[in-house]
Amino acid sequence: MIPHNQQLATVILQRINELASISEAPGVITRTFGTDAFVKGQTLVAQWMQQAGLQTRIDNIGNVRGRLPSSVPGAKTLVIASHIDTVFNAGKFDGPLGVLLGLALIEQLIEQKRTLPFHLELIAFSDEEGCRFHTTYLGSKVVAGQFDAQLLNKQDANGTSLENVLQAMGSHTTLLPQDAIRAGEWLGYFEVHIEQGPVLYEKNIPVGIVTAIAGQKRIALTFKGEAGHAGTVPMHMRNDALCAASEFILEVERFAGSHMQSVLATVGTMNIHNAASNVIPGEVSCTLDLRSPNHQVLSSCYAYLEQLGTAICQRRNIIFEWNLVQETKPVNCDANMSRLLAASVRQCGYEVVNMVSGAGHDAVAVAPVSPVTMLFVRCFKGISHNPLENVELKDLAAAVDVSAAFLQSLIQKYNKG
Amino acid sequence: MIPHNQQLATVILQRINELASISEAPGVITRTFGTDAFVKGQTLVAQWMQQAGLQTRIDNIGNVRGRLPSSVPGAKTLVIASHIDTVFNAGKFDGPLGVLLGLALIEQLIEQKRTLPFHLELIAFSDEEGCRFHTTYLGSKVVAGQFDAQLLNKQDANGTSLENVLQAMGSHTTLLPQDAIRAGEWLGYFEVHIEQGPVLYEKNIPVGIVTAIAGQKRIALTFKGEAGHAGTVPMHMRNDALCAASEFILEVERFAGSHMQSVLATVGTMNIHNAASNVIPGEVSCTLDLRSPNHQVLSSCYAYLEQLGTAICQRRNIIFEWNLVQETKPVNCDANMSRLLAASVRQCGYEVVNMVSGAGHDAVAVAPVSPVTMLFVRCFKGISHNPLENVELKDLAAAVDVSAAFLQSLIQKYNKG
Repeated sequence: MIPHNQQLATVILQRINELASISEAPGVITRTFGTDAFVKGQTLVAQWMQQAGLQTRIDNIGNVRGRLPSSVPGAKTLVIASHIDTVFNAGKFDGPLGVLLGLALIEQLIEQKRTLPFHLELIAFSDEEGCRFHTTYLGSKVVAGQFDAQLLNKQDANGTSLENVLQAMGSHTTLLPQDAIRAGEWLGYFEVHIEQGPVLYEKNIPVGIVTAIAGQKRIALTFKGEAGHAGTVPMHMRNDALCAASEFILEVERFAGSHMQSVLATVGTMNIHNAASNVIPGEVSCTLDLRSPNHQVLSSCYAYLEQLGTAICQRRNIIFEWNLVQETKPVNCDANMSRLLAASVRQCGYEVVNMVSGAGHDAVAVAPVSPVTMLFVRCFKGISHNPLENVELKDLAAAVDVSAAFLQSLIQKYNKG
Repeated sequence: MIPHNQQLATVILQRINELASISEAPGVITRTFGTDAFVKGQTLVAQWMQQAGLQTRIDNIGNVRGRLPSSVPGAKTLVIASHIDTVFNAGKFDGPLGVLLGLALIEQLIEQKRTLPFHLELIAFSDEEGCRFHTTYLGSKVVAGQFDAQLLNKQDANGTSLENVLQAMGSHTTLLPQDAIRAGEWLGYFEVHIEQGPVLYEKNIPVGIVTAIAGQKRIALTFKGEAGHAGTVPMHMRNDALCAASEFILEVERFAGSHMQSVLATVGTMNIHNAASNVIPGEVSCTLDLRSPNHQVLSSCYAYLEQLGTAICQRRNIIFEWNLVQETKPVNCDANMSRLLAASVRQCGYEVVNMVSGAGHDAVAVAPVSPVTMLFVRCFKGISHNPLENVELKDLAAAVDVSAAFLQSLIQKYNKG
């Protein structure tokens, strides 16, 4: 397939590069919430929206919002959005791709002088990564009316509160509730984002449809055995905490591997207490990251793996501790919007790949108040949160083709309605 | 069994306690080589030897040596020895028990005015643990004529060389070779030491005969896979370095467990590079400690486990690195002396338990020049290198009984000869 919108993709890529050049530190891409670099990036995006002809403003949480209103009485709002904050030493596509692709689509609509059956709002969310305040979705939570004012007390590493940072940015935190789009006003939410995983890359397909965003549970595990001299305790007298942990890790891998992509399970950290090469490990701590798009699957896997660990440790005479430290619920994308998006993918000549997002996105915050849908774009080897993050121009163009078709079909649908 | 030498054991225990009260730091037992506390301990032991009537001196590596000479022309030397340096925060029996039990035995001989068919030399080795200079057996290497002068350049954590420490202790390092007992002069070497393992404790037997000291190989392992997002990389696309390491650890445990005590294998340390709870481990480093009293078994296990790791990693598409970082060869105790020691154990009414020492001892350094034999004494739960290290008085008395009987049978044997 040769995508139509190569030229639009080139413009988008230029803007992505320009935004990426604004960074807190030279030689890397870092724009965490509320920093000087962030504000500079925010201002640039606001200028682009203004130049495109959108009613542009920066709201009280720092989101850049550009509105193309419909003249139809009682029209609802379709939000196209992604985020412009980054992790430390980020890639340039994670977030900005969705915002600047949305901008290009809307510029095309304005050029074509299309009348809209719904208001269009393009939003560059201010804080999705949450690196500065260890939060999630600050920007989208405000727009969805899901913002908890307690969050204003959160402090960054220097002890500066979110409230102080917002005030320094010129925000009025008492007006945050007024920045929400009320539940009844949403037509839908559409986000284009890089996959951040290897599925599309391995399948050699440029775009995929997100059907759900996985829920997550993070568990802290401890295995308590008995330390001993590696040279003097016979194998059959040992209570080796690391061997118990290893057996558990292998069983977790086997279990998740047999669940055909419906669950992901990862032991990512491990610490042996007072480790030495000649000491039998007496105590091991590790973390288990468990994800599934299906709430029931997630819960049953959680229960099963706790039982599994308990059984392994009982047999080995090891004390097993299992503590849930974090959880988020799975979010389903809207079936009707996803069907329309799938039709657009097919119309552009691509195979439809339905995917689960294991990473979280702003759609999670919006889902309680609006139907949400997401399009994933292939990225190089699935690498993300890394300077090696890359999207090829033709894939970007394919994403523009599909998104434009999707927008057209939405306009047609609501014009008829 | 009620041991005969309860009273002698009480004296030994009093001296062990007195020596233990000399420490580099209050509230713990720490006497590493060459410190003020060490020199104070050394002086106390030398006083005891002198008071017992031994020809006492401190040699150039800091060993305390007490000699009870034989009047027989051309008599050889039987060395009874252990060490008086400790690890950090040590137990009080590891080392001193052997020295002070030897002292009590010799005091008994002197009291009985026995004429000896061999010279007796009691040695309190100055550095067996090697904590200060990361060495092994400095004291016994000098006595065995196995000391490498290069070791004098070794530096402690403060950058002070062994040579400087020895000079400060009043030693003449050029005279170190003269402190050796020449190869032809040794009759034998006898050491009593706590087991530092749980075998005697579990078998409920006070003493055991060491037939061999295990050889050891320490291997540094690296598993290199691919890091990735725990939420976005499907299970079947992962190259999880921790899962590979876990499979290896379990196989090592199974393999060593099936070798019926002829090999011990321990993964004691593990590090996941750039670990995070939501990142698939890309690289894992760990250490493997491998021990066996049989050189061939040790070598073949070493080769087998390397192959095993290679095969696991090939199947998992993981890069496997295996680097030998340290090795010591196994040492066999002298069969004739061990037979005599076994007869003494039986004579005292105890079951003969033949054991392999997985921990290293000074006998390793002496074995190239002399027949060696060792008696292990039960310690509480096998705990050692720890303040909880404990030997019961009746076990200490049993060790005195057996050692005294062994010494008698040696005297009888060489008187006849």
